[in-house]
Amino acid sequence: MTAPQRPTIPAPDPQAAEPLYRQVYQRLRDAIAKGVLKPGDRIPSARALMAELGVARGTIESAYSLLAAEGFIQARGQAGTIVAPDLPSQHMPAVLVPPAKAVTAAPSFRPETTLPFQMGLPALDAFPRKIWARLGARCVRAMQPADMAHPPVAGLPSLRAEIAAYLHVARGVRCSPSQIFVTSGYRHSLALLAQSLLQRGDRVWMENPGYPPTRELLTRLLLKPVPVPVDADGLDVAQGQRAAPRARAAVVTPAHQSPLGVSLSLPRRLALLDWAKRQEAWIVEDDYDGEYRYVSRPLPALQSLDRDGRVLYAGTFSKVLFPSIRLAYVVVPEALVDRFERTAEIITGGSPQLTQAIVGAFIAEGHFARHIQRTRKLYAERRAQAVAALEQVLGRSIRIDEQPGGMHLILRLQGRRSDRKLVERMLAAGLYGEALSDWTQGRVSDPAVLVAFTNIASSRDATQLARRLQPLMA
Amino acid sequence: MTAPQRPTIPAPDPQAAEPLYRQVYQRLRDAIAKGVLKPGDRIPSARALMAELGVARGTIESAYSLLAAEGFIQARGQAGTIVAPDLPSQHMPAVLVPPAKAVTAAPSFRPETTLPFQMGLPALDAFPRKIWARLGARCVRAMQPADMAHPPVAGLPSLRAEIAAYLHVARGVRCSPSQIFVTSGYRHSLALLAQSLLQRGDRVWMENPGYPPTRELLTRLLLKPVPVPVDADGLDVAQGQRAAPRARAAVVTPAHQSPLGVSLSLPRRLALLDWAKRQEAWIVEDDYDGEYRYVSRPLPALQSLDRDGRVLYAGTFSKVLFPSIRLAYVVVPEALVDRFERTAEIITGGSPQLTQAIVGAFIAEGHFARHIQRTRKLYAERRAQAVAALEQVLGRSIRIDEQPGGMHLILRLQGRRSDRKLVERMLAAGLYGEALSDWTQGRVSDPAVLVAFTNIASSRDATQLARRLQPLMA
Repeated sequence: MTAPQRPTIPAPDPQAAEPLYRQVYQRLRDAIAKGVLKPGDRIPSARALMAELGVARGTIESAYSLLAAEGFIQARGQAGTIVAPDLPSQHMPAVLVPPAKAVTAAPSFRPETTLPFQMGLPALDAFPRKIWARLGARCVRAMQPADMAHPPVAGLPSLRAEIAAYLHVARGVRCSPSQIFVTSGYRHSLALLAQSLLQRGDRVWMENPGYPPTRELLTRLLLKPVPVPVDADGLDVAQGQRAAPRARAAVVTPAHQSPLGVSLSLPRRLALLDWAKRQEAWIVEDDYDGEYRYVSRPLPALQSLDRDGRVLYAGTFSKVLFPSIRLAYVVVPEALVDRFERTAEIITGGSPQLTQAIVGAFIAEGHFARHIQRTRKLYAERRAQAVAALEQVLGRSIRIDEQPGGMHLILRLQGRRSDRKLVERMLAAGLYGEALSDWTQGRVSDPAVLVAFTNIASSRDATQLARRLQPLMA
Repeated sequence: MTAPQRPTIPAPDPQAAEPLYRQVYQRLRDAIAKGVLKPGDRIPSARALMAELGVARGTIESAYSLLAAEGFIQARGQAGTIVAPDLPSQHMPAVLVPPAKAVTAAPSFRPETTLPFQMGLPALDAFPRKIWARLGARCVRAMQPADMAHPPVAGLPSLRAEIAAYLHVARGVRCSPSQIFVTSGYRHSLALLAQSLLQRGDRVWMENPGYPPTRELLTRLLLKPVPVPVDADGLDVAQGQRAAPRARAAVVTPAHQSPLGVSLSLPRRLALLDWAKRQEAWIVEDDYDGEYRYVSRPLPALQSLDRDGRVLYAGTFSKVLFPSIRLAYVVVPEALVDRFERTAEIITGGSPQLTQAIVGAFIAEGHFARHIQRTRKLYAERRAQAVAALEQVLGRSIRIDEQPGGMHLILRLQGRRSDRKLVERMLAAGLYGEALSDWTQGRVSDPAVLVAFTNIASSRDATQLARRLQPLMA
């Protein structure tokens, strides 16, 4: 052989998941990174490597084109292709960038992996993925240059119009599309609200027990959450007035209180609206799962009773579609539209055009309303199945709250057992659960564990899960 | 006729853009909303309406199914289908929800429509939309239930790994994927940074002139921006030290200062790093267009010189892909990873799984590096074309700064003319422009207008635009 000696490139593995061209690319990059191929070295011609590795010429060319695009190699015409001579030393790590580090355990409210009883998740098996994929493919293909520029910060007009029409029919919310601000999730909605309406140090009523992320976020936003007790009629407005009469806002979950599941009664709704009117305070209606009521029609939103422009309605697509979509919205009173537009211009860049377009099409073509109708029935069944199985297997060690709606169960622990300790044992056993104590400021008189039923697909699964839970109750 | 008299439903228009079933749905909903069809009224059978409107049975059934799903009508078996008898009055607006209101004029930094010279936009015509659509369709079809749950708040591991590998090669940034936090845009990155590292009232150096949204956002976050002058070597670190020696952070654009386009010189880089080390202050490196340098290799990022973990590198896909994607990232020093994870858990819900998956695939398959390489060449050409045309047509009324990179031109106005007034005239004439005065705190000695060249596709277009600009210069 007369060819100059050169390092051998290992052959790619045709069985591997990674495309062949990318394996070749990676092997050459490794060789450069490790100094096996040095700056200025000539690299094998595509033809030579093709013969050596037994892969198609196009495969080699794709790999070379990628290496060239990233600046690792340079074509020198007749002289062949060389490793870039001016590749600075910091571009050549001794070892390659390590693979993504396993993400450390996240706080319990948003785990990385999905466990049985996982809270906050809709029935993932019931989502019409084929329809979604068809709409998604259509929307991504339809993208025109005009769709690529900065999206309107308040949301795509077509999506805002669909949301307004849907809310009108389904939740009794009256608004024009211009009152709707699309956000990238509930936390973003709350931040937009706080930035538009509140000052640091403002006191904000929060339900006790209540959704812990709301408290954490309000605190981060330099606001002062004031816990207000919840009873069978929902937030106790009179107690709120005693604790912090001049609070500037109240965050409430009127449809199904989070986590107790009770509905805010009509007298309480009127009392809350009256307080807000007199104090010029704001009511944030977190209607995260208002659609899911099983014993009668969903209650109209609190917003529909508001005559004074005090209610800000916060909705989300996390529960009715799926969480990884990252799309939510706030409906603001007409008089606040300009103020929210100004805030949104400063603190947000808008939500992705593509996901907004897909959701808009999903609503416009009726899939959204049908999906909610279908999951409402499904959840009523799954709830009943889960309750039956848990009651049968666990007997008197628990009592399950009767709730008119929602996406989780409250298992009251009989006797004076610690809900936190039970949750620890559940997580150790690969079962999800949240302790009511962790949702509560101060003492809990009645320990309970919260578990979701939405992804328990059959009676048999429910019984099996109950049996896994049983030994942990001892 | 023996059938009971009933209101006529107008026939749908087969030429309309809206699908037939949705037209039928809308007409029936109108009839219910207007009280033409009242609660309890029987609605025409699908067969009857099919004959009357001359559309397929499936069309009618789709419309009815949507109306039923939304609770407007109810099937009563043999008795036919009726308008829901318990439809509450608030569900029946006298007029339907108005169409999306025309969005009011947005502030100049993010206009709703794209004008010639529009700043902040990549060359939309040069984006490989077919490849993007193919990857997008593939990603949306590949979505599994596990992809639908809450996304990791810091970003998809695969995307973080691709970003780390890319930054290493292209920008000299050394980091592991766990140091990368994916966000929904530069503003979101800055908010995450401020929430993680700064206290209200903290002083923050800002370049003067500098990107106005940075100042607005810092102010909203209750921080105190301190303007620090920029000269031919970039941010004047000595002046910063005189003005606010104990500032807690500095936001800088070292690659091409925004808007002046100068690079931060090596002595200044070292001085800035030294100041940050001694004061334990943070440097935010906004590398919004670092890839686009035309006269030599792109400069490595400031982050690559940082030995003390003081630099936070902020990148974005808005400029190298397109703005409506809403995806950016921050690279944080190793020692800050835990702190950022905790903040991200509280203030964000993560970015959409789908867009992250598409961008990840776009990078992994080499399209990203190729696109940047291609647009770098293209922008050098478009910049030269635009400069030539503007100089030829406008002659001595302007002087164009020589800049080594970036995505806009600086037209210095000769004589003592007002840049703000010229910009007003340009906007009125349908041309985009921003006044250097609006980017500057205090007096501007040298009035100038900023215009982008990225979307001016030919010399002819450039000449035409220069001719539209000419009469406005008078």
